This record gives sequence, structure tokens and C-alpha cells, in this order.
Amino acid sequence: MTELEKGPRGLRRGRGARERILGASRQLFRDQGINSTGLDQLCAVAQVSKRTFYQHFKGKDELIAEHLRRFDPDILPEVFDRADLTPRERLLAAFDIHGPLCPFIAAAVEIHDPDHPARVHAADYKKAFAARLTETAREAGATDPEQLGEQLALLLDGASARNRVLNTETFATAAAIAAVLIDNAIAASAVPPSAGGNPSTGTGPHARSGGELSRS
Amino acid sequence: MTELEKGPRGLRRGRGARERILGASRQLFRDQGINSTGLDQLCAVAQVSKRTFYQHFKGKDELIAEHLRRFDPDILPEVFDRADLTPRERLLAAFDIHGPLCPFIAAAVEIHDPDHPARVHAADYKKAFAARLTETAREAGATDPEQLGEQLALLLDGASARNRVLNTETFATAAAIAAVLIDNAIAASAVPPSAGGNPSTGTGPHARSGGELSRS
Repeated sequence: MTELEKGPRGLRRGRGARERILGASRQLFRDQGINSTGLDQLCAVAQVSKRTFYQHFKGKDELIAEHLRRFDPDILPEVFDRADLTPRERLLAAFDIHGPLCPFIAAAVEIHDPDHPARVHAADYKKAFAARLTETAREAGATDPEQLGEQLALLLDGASARNRVLNTETFATAAAIAAVLIDNAIAASAVPPSAGGNPSTGTGPHARSGGELSRS
Repeated sequence: MTELEKGPRGLRRGRGARERILGASRQLFRDQGINSTGLDQLCAVAQVSKRTFYQHFKGKDELIAEHLRRFDPDILPEVFDRADLTPRERLLAAFDIHGPLCPFIAAAVEIHDPDHPARVHAADYKKAFAARLTETAREAGATDPEQLGEQLALLLDGASARNRVLNTETFATAAAIAAVLIDNAIAASAVPPSAGGNPSTGTGPHARSGGELSRS
């Protein structure tokens, strides 16, 4: 990545400039925060001129929103699309994949205007994630899938926030609560014939090597 | 608060200057964030000169740490010291008191260095809060008080983070999970004779007018 964008020639956009800007923002926003990252530094790390930056983004606000849209656009397909797991196992597997701090929480804390496009997207993502959990809870035969979906989403957010504050791993605590809630919600209702889940395995071991997650 | 600190006369510290600086930081850090608040604005709102500021604080980092130390130093005494509630009721009452975003989570997200004094204090606070919950869980006769304390602390953090991202109220979800966990932990063990709690009331209504909380 030694090619340097030339500002004055910028009308012919460098093909990789947009991706370099987004790559730089991902790294800098994660390592030092959104508000602590200025455009000068961002352009320097991305190796683009300011002029090139403004050819790709109206400004930093648009970049932040696009930065978030790039995270996990399909909502954890590496968990929710796994055909080899029962719905109950997929609900638990969501607790095995996590990074140090959810970038949507980070953006929501850093950006104070709830109407900022990044805040709007963060809220939409969180709702879509809960909907994915709800849909899986329904497949698993949960009594009240919406309630279970929202509860599990809150646990994941709690683990992410608490991880950051304590600088230690707290997802195991969240997973243990999740196992109790899933057992309560599913044991109390009939498992649909198509689900094929075994209601008694919910609290069993479900660890798998935590793969890299795009949203982490 | 019209008295203005005079920089050149600053050697005689204005008696209210330190409190005004802390009041301004509380307002500005909450409303626009820690990293978005510069010393110029902070001093202007606090009506102190830069010179006066530096007579009270070594710099912004020390101010941030002191700002956090001022929040809830006694760990929610309005809940945990209530003699009119059973231990079980106190555990649930912790979910009735909350603000828009926990300032310790906010600081931990905004400040990236885990060794920053504010980060260290935020982690200490969260541990102390979980210890308060654990102590109360033990009084309530929980099977594994440490586990229940850590679980309830995670739920509170999850509600706070999720509240912020969704810009909506999520503490009721956390409280409902808490009721399940408390019932599971306490129903399974004998209530100590001294606790006086009624194990069957855990999931009952526990709403009370959510008072203002210093940490909110």
C-alpha cells in the first residue's frame, strides 16, 4: 500500500482510496476512539489527500456511519446460518463469538446526538440482532421468542460493556445466564417437530474456538 | 455563580473553583463526552481561568478520575442501606434506579488506556458494585452469592449500554431476568433465619418511583 493518492489529480479517484480510508478508520476508531481521531491523521494513515477523502465522503459523520455499516452487515451469519447446529445451540453459540468492545456500543457512547446517522444505524443493528435471536428462539420452540431474543441481546451487550470496563472476560457469565433463560423458555414449551433440538442439552458445554468476528 | 476567578490572583484559590470545575465537567462530560470537551470550554463553563484550573488539577486526566470518584462513592446506599427492604427486595430495587448511561461505562469506552486512573477507578467501582450485590445475595441466602452478584451486575451494565444504543428503556428486561436468577438462586437454598425474606415474592411487583441517582 505504497501508492499515494495525489490530491491535485484527485478527480480520477484512486480505486483503493475508499477502502483504505475505511480500513484506517476501522483501526483508528477501534484503537483510539472516534472522537479522538482527526481527519488529518485518518488521511495520513489511509495515504489519501484531504481532497480525495472528500471525493468519497461528505465528511467524518458519513465516514463513521459507513464504518459501522461495514461491520457484520448480515448479522452474525457464522452463527445464525449454521445448519449443523440446532436452534438452541445457535442461541448459545452467539455467546462464543465476541470481541473486546462492540463497535455499535462504542459509537453510541461516543456520539451524543441520537439522530446522527451512525447512532441510527447502531440502533437498527441492535434491533436486527435481537430479531435474529428472536427468530432462532422461535425455531427452538421458546414460549415467548421476542422476550428471549431481547433478553439474550441484553446479555451480549452487558458482557461487551462489562468486558471493557473490567478489562477482563465476562462472556462466560453472560453465557451461563443465557443457558438458564433458554432452558426456562424452551423446557416450558413443546419443541416443534422440525426443530430437532434436545431440550436437555442447553446447559451443556458449547465452547468452540471463538472465530474472528467482523463486528469485533 | 457570577464570581469570576482571576488568573493573575490565582495563588489565593477561589474557594468554589474546584467544585465549579467538577460541576462543569459533570455536565459537559455527560452531555458531549469526555474527549469532546476541551479545557478552554471547561474553564469557560466553570468560570475559572486556566491558571486556576491547574492549581486544582494536574491536568484533564486527573480531573476525569476525580469526576468519576464523585459518582456514587458509597455504592448505591439508597438501595443497599435500606433497612425497610429484605435482601431479596434490595437486589431487585437496584434495577429501579438508573440513568441514561452509566458514567463508568462511558469513561471506559472513551478512554482507551486501561491504566488511565479513570479506567482503573471505573473497574474498581464495578468490582465494588458487584461485591455489594454479592453481599446482599449472601444475606438473601443465595446458593452462590458471588455468581449471582456478578450476574446481576452484568445485567445492569447490559441495560445501561443497550438503553444508550437503542435510545429507549431496557431496564425492565434486565429486571425480569434478575427476578428469574434471584428466584433460582434463592429458592434452591434455605433462607437464613436472620434474613426474613419471603422467597416467593421475588417476581412480584417491585417498582418504586426511580429516584435520582448520583451515578446517573
